[in-house]
Amino acid sequence: MARAIEWIEPDGAVGVLRLLDQTALPLEERMLEISSVDELIDAIQRLAVRGAPALGAAGAYGVVIAMQQAAREGWDQQHLADAITRIAYARPTAVNLAWGARRVDAVRGGGMELVLLEAHAVAREDEAANRELSRLGADWLLATLGDRPLRAITHCNTGALATSAWGTAYGILRELHDRGRLEMVHVDETRPLLQGVRLTSWELQRDGIDHVVQCDGAAASTILRGLVDFAVIGADRITANGDAANKIGSVGVALAAKRAGIPFVVAAPYSSVDERTATGDEIEIEERSDAEVLQFGGVSVAAPGVRAFNPAFDVTPHDLIAAIVTERGVVEPSDADVPLFMTETTRD
Amino acid sequence: MARAIEWIEPDGAVGVLRLLDQTALPLEERMLEISSVDELIDAIQRLAVRGAPALGAAGAYGVVIAMQQAAREGWDQQHLADAITRIAYARPTAVNLAWGARRVDAVRGGGMELVLLEAHAVAREDEAANRELSRLGADWLLATLGDRPLRAITHCNTGALATSAWGTAYGILRELHDRGRLEMVHVDETRPLLQGVRLTSWELQRDGIDHVVQCDGAAASTILRGLVDFAVIGADRITANGDAANKIGSVGVALAAKRAGIPFVVAAPYSSVDERTATGDEIEIEERSDAEVLQFGGVSVAAPGVRAFNPAFDVTPHDLIAAIVTERGVVEPSDADVPLFMTETTRD
Repeated sequence: MARAIEWIEPDGAVGVLRLLDQTALPLEERMLEISSVDELIDAIQRLAVRGAPALGAAGAYGVVIAMQQAAREGWDQQHLADAITRIAYARPTAVNLAWGARRVDAVRGGGMELVLLEAHAVAREDEAANRELSRLGADWLLATLGDRPLRAITHCNTGALATSAWGTAYGILRELHDRGRLEMVHVDETRPLLQGVRLTSWELQRDGIDHVVQCDGAAASTILRGLVDFAVIGADRITANGDAANKIGSVGVALAAKRAGIPFVVAAPYSSVDERTATGDEIEIEERSDAEVLQFGGVSVAAPGVRAFNPAFDVTPHDLIAAIVTERGVVEPSDADVPLFMTETTRD
Repeated sequence: MARAIEWIEPDGAVGVLRLLDQTALPLEERMLEISSVDELIDAIQRLAVRGAPALGAAGAYGVVIAMQQAAREGWDQQHLADAITRIAYARPTAVNLAWGARRVDAVRGGGMELVLLEAHAVAREDEAANRELSRLGADWLLATLGDRPLRAITHCNTGALATSAWGTAYGILRELHDRGRLEMVHVDETRPLLQGVRLTSWELQRDGIDHVVQCDGAAASTILRGLVDFAVIGADRITANGDAANKIGSVGVALAAKRAGIPFVVAAPYSSVDERTATGDEIEIEERSDAEVLQFGGVSVAAPGVRAFNPAFDVTPHDLIAAIVTERGVVEPSDADVPLFMTETTRD
């Protein structure tokens, strides 16, 4: 399939960021070509591009787009810096977005060519990280649960659509499948925006992986009834103590996994680790519009005047997490009293 | 509002069962008039009438409808008995449906007039039970949490729409509201059929109770973030050891409440107690169609060929339940090792 996020340079034309519009899937594979800061922020905020690792690449290429627009429209340095900051904080919870933008912004003094190379490096390194963490995660699961076909549950979408390529939690599933060690997957539909049924199921079908889609409310009983061997999800931010912010509904999966005694695994590139934030209590949780909850396809299911509460993320405390898998290795935070991820001074 | 389920006898006409078609709410208040066994079973199976206590009344009036149809169409006794059995087991999980049918069937030898009186008694006693358990539940909550305005979370619909009148878990909320002790309610939307946003929110709005609707996946974090003081749900069946079957998603609420240390309360008329079933492991869990999960308003959200897993109920183990409230009193099963509900020989 087309990559979810890719820099393309049509013959003789200036480069643009091409996005697979994830709001139109699975019914339509619609491509967007992004060449301005406002277009990019709109695509990020309405989730045409989404997933923490993909947002890292979006932030990175966003700097390129901002520089192109600045040259085209004669912005001064302050205007350009402000535009990059707007991209970096277009959504508050995923740390990767700001990380990708800041990393590329740091080489802006070197000129456009260097900036574009750095953005490409962000995307390329993300794919390499995904492939490595997928191998490590599959190794850990087979060592922990035995070398046999496993049944999984996952929440939201963490596949090639959510990343530069390959996938994180989904990447582990794909790795297990390639090794002949994945029996089937229970996919939470992931309300309100249904990334599970629209995106993950679409990817699983393309990859030939047996699966069923279920309502989010079914996750706990699926786990308690012994229908799966492990749970694996992505992360939008992992704090120094190992708490993990992810799509709303994740912590409910973790609570059930703990009760059932099956591993709850969090998989993310190390760029999702936010060593500067001590615990999950400090993470700002994005709240999105009532309409996402109260309408289906533009038709209201609620009586007029009804209000919604629509947090996009929740935080899973580290004691519920059996393993955090990044490309740097596997850590087991459930018994950790000390910070798992030390503050680095090399970031930013 | 019109009652969700009511026997009406238009002037000079034979009586019929009038149902408020809950599949059309909140957009339309459509009434159904049921006068045959097949119409009733269809209404039960497509959830035009639903909620364990309302199903008790539906089972009771179902015997009347079956007797009317038998007289009209000249059925023999075996045909009539089979029709009543079909009604009693039209859905497998709620024990009230069979209980209501069996209770009224037991007086069938006394003739139509007696049968109708017994069915009226089932409905009337359900309302009385709801009002009594609502008082007891509110008393218990205020004694446990302090005499102050409380914030609640609830799942599915347990109000006047789910019962003969008044409500069970919802009845407790209404009782607290009447006492000035209900600050607000978080309502899980309750996928797949959205009884929370379509029905509970509609009832709360009519009763002037402040509330927000949220996705089911938000329940755990709402509880862990301290946004509510207690959780209250209904039950379709409570086994002898205090395990409770209820709408899919309930056990996830219970797991979060346990972790957060807030009470998880199950409210139901005693007719939902199934003393003959020892534990929740023995309860048959109804599985419903893929389409309920994969379609919204007839439009598919999944790629063609995707399968769903759609259990309608889950079972909450008794150790996660702080209190079970029936009209007979409040029991606290979380520490119980012995059967809570002794086998009676007076039932059936």
